Amino acid sequence: MLKAVEWKGETFQFLDQTLLPLEEVYIETSDYREVEEAIRQLKIRGAPLLGVTAAYGLCLGALEGEKGKVGDFFSFLEKVDVDLRTSRPTAVNISWALDRLKKIWEQDMEDWSPRQVVNSLIDEAKKIEEEDYKNNENIARYGAQLLQDEDRVLTHCNTGSLACSGWGTALGAISWAVLQEGKKIQVYADETRPLWQGARLTAFELMKNSIPVTVICDNMAGYLMSQGLVDKVIVGADRVTLQGDAANKIGTYSLAVLAHYHKIPFYMAFPLSSVDFSIREGREIPIEERDPEEVIAPRGIKITPPGVGVRNPAFDVTPHHLITALITEKGIVYPPFEEVLLNWKTEARQNG
Amino acid sequence: MLKAVEWKGETFQFLDQTLLPLEEVYIETSDYREVEEAIRQLKIRGAPLLGVTAAYGLCLGALEGEKGKVGDFFSFLEKVDVDLRTSRPTAVNISWALDRLKKIWEQDMEDWSPRQVVNSLIDEAKKIEEEDYKNNENIARYGAQLLQDEDRVLTHCNTGSLACSGWGTALGAISWAVLQEGKKIQVYADETRPLWQGARLTAFELMKNSIPVTVICDNMAGYLMSQGLVDKVIVGADRVTLQGDAANKIGTYSLAVLAHYHKIPFYMAFPLSSVDFSIREGREIPIEERDPEEVIAPRGIKITPPGVGVRNPAFDVTPHHLITALITEKGIVYPPFEEVLLNWKTEARQNG
Repeated sequence: MLKAVEWKGETFQFLDQTLLPLEEVYIETSDYREVEEAIRQLKIRGAPLLGVTAAYGLCLGALEGEKGKVGDFFSFLEKVDVDLRTSRPTAVNISWALDRLKKIWEQDMEDWSPRQVVNSLIDEAKKIEEEDYKNNENIARYGAQLLQDEDRVLTHCNTGSLACSGWGTALGAISWAVLQEGKKIQVYADETRPLWQGARLTAFELMKNSIPVTVICDNMAGYLMSQGLVDKVIVGADRVTLQGDAANKIGTYSLAVLAHYHKIPFYMAFPLSSVDFSIREGREIPIEERDPEEVIAPRGIKITPPGVGVRNPAFDVTPHHLITALITEKGIVYPPFEEVLLNWKTEARQNG
Repeated sequence: MLKAVEWKGETFQFLDQTLLPLEEVYIETSDYREVEEAIRQLKIRGAPLLGVTAAYGLCLGALEGEKGKVGDFFSFLEKVDVDLRTSRPTAVNISWALDRLKKIWEQDMEDWSPRQVVNSLIDEAKKIEEEDYKNNENIARYGAQLLQDEDRVLTHCNTGSLACSGWGTALGAISWAVLQEGKKIQVYADETRPLWQGARLTAFELMKNSIPVTVICDNMAGYLMSQGLVDKVIVGADRVTLQGDAANKIGTYSLAVLAHYHKIPFYMAFPLSSVDFSIREGREIPIEERDPEEVIAPRGIKITPPGVGVRNPAFDVTPHHLITALITEKGIVYPPFEEVLLNWKTEARQNG
């Protein structure tokens, strides 16, 4: 299985996903700023992986702070926390992970040395990674239950090992169905403009596992559905609200409408760390607008006339009523989603 | 106004649209094979313009045949006709134009010299071009009636002067509304993967005319609609059946479903030469499947892993029940379309 990020004791290693599938370049760093930049530039991406990465990023900051060259240890941690937290606005996993670490470094630690804090933070980050790995496995196993032998499944963006610590979410379910259960699945991968995570990363992962994959342009999905070539749609999510509205890679919403029109089941798979229990409605989710260059100069090749206007929202929100079921590490949830998610919120509070 | 093709007496000149918007290169040729190849490679594209181009292509063949180095004049014309006719399968305008010319060279012409045939063919080709120019103007004028001041209009692919002899069809309506009627229109142009006719050609034409245009990736259209940013959708058509099912650039069908879901008017604009009166149902329209390289190596840049499976249908079919109105040179048609189109078929037969 691909390891997109890895903690190496005192440094952090990540696979530069912008160079895939043509080059597999791993970068090792001890500078949290490089991690922050890698998140901004999508060298590291995928909501669950962003949580893990942010946690290790803070650990790098703590290690730097411990050496004492950046002023007060806790003031510096505060700065690192804010820098990482603002690196990408839509996925909630970053702040979810940093909140967990903050509970450690904000508690009363009069007797603690910075070294002890650092060790506790690294332990917690490792725990987040291990939990994500385990959650992936459960999501993949539950998701696979929804896939039948001979299914033709459409997916969008990348939600596999490159987006997570383990199997992945939506793509994890597909891989699990094929590799663990021996089901025959044909995958259609939306190329996912502007950054081609589908054409580059999903195709790469599936081919590594010898799972049949056909890449299509995003605008071909409706045509395939109209031809009866798609049995199910399964995608990930970057932030899910209490009523089950879900932000995911731009284009997901169009797929949900198309699936609805063609009466094709539409599933969204994610860990509960992607649920933002603080909001109920999808319109409260901030949508990241990225650099126009991603649209007008794909892979550096300019295609539009100079000076043209561009929109580049990185996400859209699929309302709960277009979603057939949610797949989480705790199981499959059918509508109405809110009650189940509310129960989990209560559980989470009781445990936390 | 851009002249995408031009008859130069005994040669044919065309703008190589694959190089736009960064280079404006005109090619002059006396070889119909170069015209045929330009059609296959999309150097010349757009259903109405393909009709005009095929007609002039046959004229080049006739001129070559007249010189007597290619065997029997009429056998050679037959070969040229077949070559051009099979250059692209979906747009019906090519065979529509070649049928018109065939009526001339197939009639009893015992007394005619090849020179006389050539002259008649060139006259007919010019007539086709002039009619297309006039049809464009009428389509543009009728289409503009459907656009209000301050409208935000989404379009797909390119349907302007680069796709026609004059104003264009769908884009012609937008240009007419702005330039002739002074309406303020904001255009959203789908980039139109895989060949970016929207990002390259539509953006280029609109910017030349100082009409505000914003380029988006195809998968962003649904998001914009969900945000209430799109008032109307207007696109062209490459082949329309008797009941009003319409083949157009891949992605059109998805837009039609999205517009339907968001209760946004969805218009298709085309000359009657794009109507295939011989078929009733959209599923009878052949869909051209193009080279996978267009998808996997956009502008020559390889983005997918080597050996990946690909689909590359160039068109899809929008069923009549998703279309708010058809815009033709004879006027705007609301559903049911079949009766009106049938009447026009009868008229066309009576005139023909």
